[in-house]
Amino acid sequence: MIDLNADLAEGFGRWRLTDDEALLASVTSANVACGFHAGDPATMRRVCELAAERGVRIGAQVSYRDLAGFGRRSMDVPAAELAAEVAYQIGALEVFARAAGAAVAYVKPHGALYNRAVHDAEQAAAVVEGVRLSGPATGSGQPLPVLGLPGSLLLAAAAEAGLPTVEEAFADRSYRPDGTLVPRSEPDAVLHDPDLVVKRSVRLARDGEIAAADGSVLPTRARSLCVHGDTPAAARLARRVRQELSRAGVTVRAFA
Amino acid sequence: MIDLNADLAEGFGRWRLTDDEALLASVTSANVACGFHAGDPATMRRVCELAAERGVRIGAQVSYRDLAGFGRRSMDVPAAELAAEVAYQIGALEVFARAAGAAVAYVKPHGALYNRAVHDAEQAAAVVEGVRLSGPATGSGQPLPVLGLPGSLLLAAAAEAGLPTVEEAFADRSYRPDGTLVPRSEPDAVLHDPDLVVKRSVRLARDGEIAAADGSVLPTRARSLCVHGDTPAAARLARRVRQELSRAGVTVRAFA
Amino acid sequence: MIDLNADLAEGFGRWRLTDDEALLASVTSANVACGFHAGDPATMRRVCELAAERGVRIGAQVSYRDLAGFGRRSMDVPAAELAAEVAYQIGALEVFARAAGAAVAYVKPHGALYNRAVHDAEQAAAVVEGVRLSGPATGSGQPLPVLGLPGSLLLAAAAEAGLPTVEEAFADRSYRPDGTLVPRSEPDAVLHDPDLVVKRSVRLARDGEIAAADGSVLPTRARSLCVHGDTPAAARLARRVRQELSRAGVTVRAFA
Amino acid sequence: MIDLNADLAEGFGRWRLTDDEALLASVTSANVACGFHAGDPATMRRVCELAAERGVRIGAQVSYRDLAGFGRRSMDVPAAELAAEVAYQIGALEVFARAAGAAVAYVKPHGALYNRAVHDAEQAAAVVEGVRLSGPATGSGQPLPVLGLPGSLLLAAAAEAGLPTVEEAFADRSYRPDGTLVPRSEPDAVLHDPDLVVKRSVRLARDGEIAAADGSVLPTRARSLCVHGDTPAAARLARRVRQELSRAGVTVRAFA
Repeated sequence: MIDLNADLAEGFGRWRLTDDEALLASVTSANVACGFHAGDPATMRRVCELAAERGVRIGAQVSYRDLAGFGRRSMDVPAAELAAEVAYQIGALEVFARAAGAAVAYVKPHGALYNRAVHDAEQAAAVVEGVRLSGPATGSGQPLPVLGLPGSLLLAAAAEAGLPTVEEAFADRSYRPDGTLVPRSEPDAVLHDPDLVVKRSVRLARDGEIAAADGSVLPTRARSLCVHGDTPAAARLARRVRQELSRAGVTVRAFA
Repeated sequence: MIDLNADLAEGFGRWRLTDDEALLASVTSANVACGFHAGDPATMRRVCELAAERGVRIGAQVSYRDLAGFGRRSMDVPAAELAAEVAYQIGALEVFARAAGAAVAYVKPHGALYNRAVHDAEQAAAVVEGVRLSGPATGSGQPLPVLGLPGSLLLAAAAEAGLPTVEEAFADRSYRPDGTLVPRSEPDAVLHDPDLVVKRSVRLARDGEIAAADGSVLPTRARSLCVHGDTPAAARLARRVRQELSRAGVTVRAFA
Repeated sequence: MIDLNADLAEGFGRWRLTDDEALLASVTSANVACGFHAGDPATMRRVCELAAERGVRIGAQVSYRDLAGFGRRSMDVPAAELAAEVAYQIGALEVFARAAGAAVAYVKPHGALYNRAVHDAEQAAAVVEGVRLSGPATGSGQPLPVLGLPGSLLLAAAAEAGLPTVEEAFADRSYRPDGTLVPRSEPDAVLHDPDLVVKRSVRLARDGEIAAADGSVLPTRARSLCVHGDTPAAARLARRVRQELSRAGVTVRAFA
Repeated sequence: MIDLNADLAEGFGRWRLTDDEALLASVTSANVACGFHAGDPATMRRVCELAAERGVRIGAQVSYRDLAGFGRRSMDVPAAELAAEVAYQIGALEVFARAAGAAVAYVKPHGALYNRAVHDAEQAAAVVEGVRLSGPATGSGQPLPVLGLPGSLLLAAAAEAGLPTVEEAFADRSYRPDGTLVPRSEPDAVLHDPDLVVKRSVRLARDGEIAAADGSVLPTRARSLCVHGDTPAAARLARRVRQELSRAGVTVRAFA
């Protein structure tokens, strides 16, 4: 059993990036951009409505405040500011999730914040503080889960604060033997061969294994698999991943 | 009995405008800026905490997206965008109100949006749609009330949509004989004499009367009195207004 | 002889809209977005370099400050602010034009500002004041020309201020019998049939005629023809327009 | 002989921070904010006009794009983006300097960019590339000088690229024995006693000496002295510094 998550609503005003409608046909969890790196309110609303209609879970994809850099530039945001910015974004998304008859069900940092919260204890704690500020998930009374990289300080901080954590893996990213991702600045950080990505997805979900860049095999307990949404071919690839997972006997379903 | 409302949290990042702490000692309702014309997340959080501590009611002061113009420039925002932007702002504020143990209790448009929603039916309806989208007030299950100008299309649209409405009056603004405000672009639109403002406040709250610019007397049923917060002397004036209202036997309390 | 102009550099950060490279193969004047509705600095730089290489003239496409609305929402910007904002954008672009060995050669307002400056005397004058502030075109010592709609208050104000004016026409927009454009909010405001657009372009450039929506024929002295750049098919259409103009014996060249 | 520089135009829209008019009575070089951390176009224009009237030199105070953080949050901006952003800001300011009959005469990075360019070779080079892109100073045909910290990679990169460099010192900041500034995050980083600041200013300008935090004496060849402008008392302090420098026989004049 595996969850498929993708970044959605990553346009802004006149600009589009993700084919939200097509991706929502394949994924089980939608990381909805909340306006700080992408995601204008009208788009957030529409994506929440579509996600709710299709039973796709809604998550808050929180980011640094950086439209010009698409949230991909690491920033030294003081902890108190960062916590408040994270909470702000979650709250804004909640309105649209709720209006669509759903709820924000988890939080996943975007881009540079995601990467920084892997190893920066202060920012990891600030993100967790922001999630905690936003309160329990509507309906459940439980705190919101945090979706992140296995071994990251973010998940450690979340667990320490009593938040549920969900580990995710990437079928289209190269891994180092220690389980961390090869950074995007290096060649071959992203795998572009769809067949390979599909094969890795199945192996990951069915066998709990990822092949690292050096050929070594990494065990994984990831409960969610991230598929990227910001390329033209993304939606097609997501559909293939989902089909092949089903064909391989893996149940594709939002994490519990 | 009268409510005293003021605009708060109107700084952004390094910039401050309103003396939030001082104003919260005098007002009973805080119109908290939500980030579109002013109001960064950390400031919103702090103001919500202070307001909750002091029992001051928290309202969402929603605006056009216009930091450079402080929300004072009328904008032709299409209805669907405007509704989503209003809902976004309310949701963002809710997080901080809730974290402080309170809730967003009403909505008041800011600046140019306030003025436009007086006479622009489409934008008035869009604001109401945004409030409606944001759902019932936490706890109460009732829709959020809208605070606005008597006779405005905004309050008419709110009433039609089943939202509670609260009329407000301004002690430091000149009125035309027809009950509308003299626009800020005209001289004498704003009254600067504190004694006069205090006197008008008492007359308004106790006698239900406002003297128009031509000397004629306007009856008013306003349940809230707006005091401005964006001048250095604002907090002092608010304190005096409150004291004199109490002295005149008027109960100063958030509207029901 | 006719000039072909198109809006370029209309991306922002991660987002792209216009196929700048392809359009630069067809147009003779590039209206470069300057950062207020679109156009990040790195994109502006690249487009200026490409334009200079290909001998395409560079113009400043100035806009309201409105990334979220792509500059398509009319705004009540006070004249002094608007003039300064226009000058700011022109100056920013000049740096990149100059670094590429070229210069900003004209100014064209974008979107809602373009439309408003047709009939709003105050904003038209403010745009002209902004152009005047930006000083003479580098090299020539002459004031910058303003590109706009025939009969607009913008061109009238520019002429009165001693700025050269250049009238433009649209091959893919419907005209009313009085020579104004059918607004985008109406159906059939934009013509989508490429053959028709090409035919209208040739008639316009060769015969000085535009067919209005009611079939009446409008004479035109437009020295520039605007082709739109913000659709996937735009670059193809621009190429066809250019080819057919040449085939019809029209010289396609930047206005003098 | 010494230059006095201060940060000016650091408001945005409705917000003010620096008392530009008062500071311009004391300083000889104005670091004008260019819109990325502060500085709206209308304010930039007014400050350039005032500076030109008073013979105060105009410099471009370039920053990361970060209004919310006032440019005080270090950002991993890729070199090509940063260079273009720096050039953009310089160009925007040039328009207002030129319209006022003056010219941009130097460049000084602001806040986090200033600090980062002390030790980050890539960003230091990107700032220099941005300055170089902006071309020679109007009138002189010479490249623009860069104002910065002695020993910084920024000044090293500028010198290597053939740009003039100007070293500055701070009378109100604590120095470490190695000549670097005590970071703002530490207590006593900023000296608040006006008498002490004045005394240090005179010693610095007349004797070429700064007392470090541990009492050791640092020699300095700084040709410019930075006085801070973003506190209410700043303008008063700047006036006193200027008066006492004159009284001590130091000529206060913009650097050559």
